Amino acid sequence: MPGNTFGSFFRLTTFGESHGPCMGGVIDGCPAGMGLSEDDIQLELDKRRPGQGLSTTARKEGDQVQLLSGIFEGLTTGTSIGFIVPNQDQRSKDYDHLRHLYRPGHADFSYRQKYGLRDHRGGGRASARETVCRVVGGAVAQKVLAAHDMRILAYTRELGGIQAEVISPEKAQERPYFAPDPSVLELWQNKVDEVRKMGDSIGGIVEITALNVPPGLGEPVFDKLDARLGYALMGIGAVKAVEIGVGREAAELMGSQNNDPLHKSGFTQNNAGGILGGISTGQPIVVRAAVKPIPSIDLPQQTLNDQGEEITFTTKGRHDVSAIPRAIPVLKAMVSLVLADMLLMQQSAQLHT
Amino acid sequence: MPGNTFGSFFRLTTFGESHGPCMGGVIDGCPAGMGLSEDDIQLELDKRRPGQGLSTTARKEGDQVQLLSGIFEGLTTGTSIGFIVPNQDQRSKDYDHLRHLYRPGHADFSYRQKYGLRDHRGGGRASARETVCRVVGGAVAQKVLAAHDMRILAYTRELGGIQAEVISPEKAQERPYFAPDPSVLELWQNKVDEVRKMGDSIGGIVEITALNVPPGLGEPVFDKLDARLGYALMGIGAVKAVEIGVGREAAELMGSQNNDPLHKSGFTQNNAGGILGGISTGQPIVVRAAVKPIPSIDLPQQTLNDQGEEITFTTKGRHDVSAIPRAIPVLKAMVSLVLADMLLMQQSAQLHT
Amino acid sequence: MPGNTFGSFFRLTTFGESHGPCMGGVIDGCPAGMGLSEDDIQLELDKRRPGQGLSTTARKEGDQVQLLSGIFEGLTTGTSIGFIVPNQDQRSKDYDHLRHLYRPGHADFSYRQKYGLRDHRGGGRASARETVCRVVGGAVAQKVLAAHDMRILAYTRELGGIQAEVISPEKAQERPYFAPDPSVLELWQNKVDEVRKMGDSIGGIVEITALNVPPGLGEPVFDKLDARLGYALMGIGAVKAVEIGVGREAAELMGSQNNDPLHKSGFTQNNAGGILGGISTGQPIVVRAAVKPIPSIDLPQQTLNDQGEEITFTTKGRHDVSAIPRAIPVLKAMVSLVLADMLLMQQSAQLHT
Amino acid sequence: MPGNTFGSFFRLTTFGESHGPCMGGVIDGCPAGMGLSEDDIQLELDKRRPGQGLSTTARKEGDQVQLLSGIFEGLTTGTSIGFIVPNQDQRSKDYDHLRHLYRPGHADFSYRQKYGLRDHRGGGRASARETVCRVVGGAVAQKVLAAHDMRILAYTRELGGIQAEVISPEKAQERPYFAPDPSVLELWQNKVDEVRKMGDSIGGIVEITALNVPPGLGEPVFDKLDARLGYALMGIGAVKAVEIGVGREAAELMGSQNNDPLHKSGFTQNNAGGILGGISTGQPIVVRAAVKPIPSIDLPQQTLNDQGEEITFTTKGRHDVSAIPRAIPVLKAMVSLVLADMLLMQQSAQLHT
Repeated sequence: MPGNTFGSFFRLTTFGESHGPCMGGVIDGCPAGMGLSEDDIQLELDKRRPGQGLSTTARKEGDQVQLLSGIFEGLTTGTSIGFIVPNQDQRSKDYDHLRHLYRPGHADFSYRQKYGLRDHRGGGRASARETVCRVVGGAVAQKVLAAHDMRILAYTRELGGIQAEVISPEKAQERPYFAPDPSVLELWQNKVDEVRKMGDSIGGIVEITALNVPPGLGEPVFDKLDARLGYALMGIGAVKAVEIGVGREAAELMGSQNNDPLHKSGFTQNNAGGILGGISTGQPIVVRAAVKPIPSIDLPQQTLNDQGEEITFTTKGRHDVSAIPRAIPVLKAMVSLVLADMLLMQQSAQLHT
Repeated sequence: MPGNTFGSFFRLTTFGESHGPCMGGVIDGCPAGMGLSEDDIQLELDKRRPGQGLSTTARKEGDQVQLLSGIFEGLTTGTSIGFIVPNQDQRSKDYDHLRHLYRPGHADFSYRQKYGLRDHRGGGRASARETVCRVVGGAVAQKVLAAHDMRILAYTRELGGIQAEVISPEKAQERPYFAPDPSVLELWQNKVDEVRKMGDSIGGIVEITALNVPPGLGEPVFDKLDARLGYALMGIGAVKAVEIGVGREAAELMGSQNNDPLHKSGFTQNNAGGILGGISTGQPIVVRAAVKPIPSIDLPQQTLNDQGEEITFTTKGRHDVSAIPRAIPVLKAMVSLVLADMLLMQQSAQLHT
Repeated sequence: MPGNTFGSFFRLTTFGESHGPCMGGVIDGCPAGMGLSEDDIQLELDKRRPGQGLSTTARKEGDQVQLLSGIFEGLTTGTSIGFIVPNQDQRSKDYDHLRHLYRPGHADFSYRQKYGLRDHRGGGRASARETVCRVVGGAVAQKVLAAHDMRILAYTRELGGIQAEVISPEKAQERPYFAPDPSVLELWQNKVDEVRKMGDSIGGIVEITALNVPPGLGEPVFDKLDARLGYALMGIGAVKAVEIGVGREAAELMGSQNNDPLHKSGFTQNNAGGILGGISTGQPIVVRAAVKPIPSIDLPQQTLNDQGEEITFTTKGRHDVSAIPRAIPVLKAMVSLVLADMLLMQQSAQLHT
Repeated sequence: MPGNTFGSFFRLTTFGESHGPCMGGVIDGCPAGMGLSEDDIQLELDKRRPGQGLSTTARKEGDQVQLLSGIFEGLTTGTSIGFIVPNQDQRSKDYDHLRHLYRPGHADFSYRQKYGLRDHRGGGRASARETVCRVVGGAVAQKVLAAHDMRILAYTRELGGIQAEVISPEKAQERPYFAPDPSVLELWQNKVDEVRKMGDSIGGIVEITALNVPPGLGEPVFDKLDARLGYALMGIGAVKAVEIGVGREAAELMGSQNNDPLHKSGFTQNNAGGILGGISTGQPIVVRAAVKPIPSIDLPQQTLNDQGEEITFTTKGRHDVSAIPRAIPVLKAMVSLVLADMLLMQQSAQLHT
């Protein structure tokens, strides 16, 4: 199926390029009778805004969502929720020099191969701007989860190779870089300043913890909860690795270390990341994503144009040094979409008579 | 949707528990006119057999696939291909002591929570035995890929913490542990022997490389090729992390290092793992999965029974020390299923008139 | 998506040709904890057997279903239910004279065009024999519906142009031709005898009434309950028209006649067939399907062979005079599959907190 | 899956209520490189406008589509196409008297049962206004079909019980009521005038003929081309019956009459409606839908309010006498969406190497 729809029961379908009039989408399958307003969503959208530490995008994006349907007197009606987020200040002329160029690390080359043509303005559909619609969908999903007492924490575990401890993750969203430990902030800021001066960029690692997830979410075999999370997060442009629980480190543990003992008081560790056999256990769901350094840098790079000629290319203008922290609300949104979908699915798992 | 179907165009739907009469499934969407026999599939099934180095499963599983439909005079007809793989030697009595027990690291607890009841025999539907059907589906997918000149290599990168170089991956499938470098074999065998004596288990890392993948596979936004690969591999029971290309290490690179320069002769490195913006570039697709140590070990472990009482449990009988190498044909199968699905999808990407 | 899967939540995927070893399929999404045995299914399968009045198929098909998974100690486990129904007495040699022939009214020509080749034996995948799998799936769906007190009646409204009144539909399944009125039986039998002597065939109209369907089933816009019923029934080979409630006659009524008045005691008529705006109202669901005369007749017919040469063709051997009554359990099964799917879907329509 | 998405490969997802700011949707899977403009769509939208004979809707709806994405320099890019159609002149106050009322023949009662609440303004999501989005999607589908030389004719076969011959269907769209024969126009107009004076409404029958459809479209078993057409058309609010080819009349024909003989020059009749075994044969696809009289009439009707009290209700204001001709572009759109979807699906039916 074409790739612009996410989810089975709680579904998000999106559209939009950074240089069209707006981004937008349709949320389908949201249960009826849930309070929902534009303010609920705006809260999450604002977290995605530049200026949260290291972002310096020149384009001012005070994204404002407009809900177009599916709500009556403040409650969801059960029918599809249309929305748009207008693009501001799009200047497609600025991109004329990119028309024939394949930017390194971007989708320019592969889109051209796939479709035979491409919209070169700001990355077209491959622009990170599409993630604004994920945040809108995720904010609605979070309302569904909140109605079932679930809560999602998102924070940076590593930035430019410098790790943070998880000391107070619940306060991370109020801190620069969504830091789960305030003591790392100065190191991160210094690193960012240094890299910016070099004209280069850095990546990092984001962790999401979902609290109060009921046991039983996820489906057998192919639609395991971890499979869906892997799908959701790996589908974000900058993500190159996804881990559940202890993650990659599991390869180096022995079974006696990796298995989580179960006592009357519950599990005594959470290497499994809250998922066994693909089904949630009731422990916190813990997932991490490795975010690559953003490919647009102020340094000369080698590439081709669409005539097959070699070109040396330097990205003009100011750029973010890292996709973190702006990626964090996006990752959080994707985890929320998965959990809402699996929650609705679970409601028909047992025979109700 | 319930979780026993994988793929959109090229679809695999499976069923079966280790203690029923057989495993089986339906492959739908395979193009018509392709040569296909049971022998084509048997080749892949045999690679999943125990006895490839460290496996010691007492149950003898000379798995034999039976194709039940969708083939006429040696060619696929375009209609659904049913198959079964009979279970041999299932002895459900052996499992009576597990009826009320939640084995550590297994799906026993979560399945019970999800469904209100569970089939305790050999893990029921959560048994790794379900992967035999993935191998069948993957073998058919590989025939589709082969008809388009694609080829999939699968090999072990790390076992019990000991890494291997990728020297001759095309010969890996003929070596124990699917080793891509013969020089690591002695170290691995020693490690396995040592761990077996301890009664413990180990994990490792598997890498898959897909060669001759045409550019253009993958869909925008949610169904990126990497998203589908993440979904496919994270849905295998033992997998706790998935990486594309440089993977997790991308978090520690700078943009100038991570971007793959493009020359007339092609890309000069492949940190992207053959995928840009979620679409294949024509470079080799490279993906890795971290496999956890198998949870069944010959050491006492702490858990609960279904009455909520604390129990000390030791797995009886002989067990594999690692899910590697038996997991390798399964990982290969899942990558093949994704690529076949995306290949068929791509055939309608551009207007043909 | 390839066409061998039906339903979203409660899903049936099937395979098989009449001349392979068996028909079969996978039922996915059946809620856990429901009693289910082969006997439950056999009951419905037996209704599809020839010898119920006018059927005379020489091939003896005492179809016996084998359930292969998804059941533990008599209860569904929530995981996928595999099944097969062995083919008996398939004699593919009998079909050699059809290898190059496009039988009138059959799928021979269109399958060849679609796939470039075809399995000519007994119609291959286009054989009506595939409906045996629908009956299996429908029987499981009926167990789900029965657990919610729903009941499905199926009966013949018209045979060879002779209509029956709906006098005692609940007894129809015990009567020849599933007649809803015993007084029509002699007329129908005479008609059938007469047509058989002529070597010709007849069609008819089948009606299905679903009782105790709760209000709220069906989804807005595209997945209306009537849309899904239209899809389900029109997908049966012999069906050329589908009607809901008053059906085609609605075109000739005025609004004041067609609207169903609503009183405290309920609706006073049921022109709507139990569905308003695509959603069930709690009234009986009433749907009808027009079944064409079976195309295999003992009379010479004009057609082509695959060399494009004109041929006069007469079907050899004995044939049913009508697809009715054997089609009736199939129609009933399809309505049951739709209702079970919509029932599970409805469980997440409202926010549960 | 929630009901606001139609199609698998060529997909339309819609949203909107008649009293929100706009209707809208997302078209996904449209092949890249196809010329597409708002004018292409406007042409179809204009056919849906009132004032084509018997429509008298007071609300002026000069619907104007706005395309928001997926097009670059006049060509589709292969990515999702967002669109909106603004609502004009919505006056929700006008509907306060309907807040607690279940209008006869409308979805008011069933939506309330399904969701626990409903948007009573103009029918909410169940308003026929949603069909404007189907026309937009269908217009894009028609461009895909036109690029493959297909053409869709739509016309009225019967209005208020008065039938028309199919004399010049290709001119129907320029005539009032989309009449396929000019000689019936006076009879139809007299009937409409008469019914309007009575304050009542009428239904009718619409026929769609698709020309130049290549053989091979449609999938086996459940996704037959006729199944998809039945699904598509029965999902339109006013439709109560769908027929393919000879349709319901097939029940009264004998096999020797119903089978279409095949000569070198092609089929000599088209009772099958261009479909055999669910797959197109290359003959014209012929499908009919029976449209019920619109339920809003100027006559007193019996119903309940949401307190369960009996009410006599008369629809205020002016109303259309029939859903025909406004339903015709909608039916045409749905047939087009099905054919485009099946056309893309067919591109992977045979192995291309």
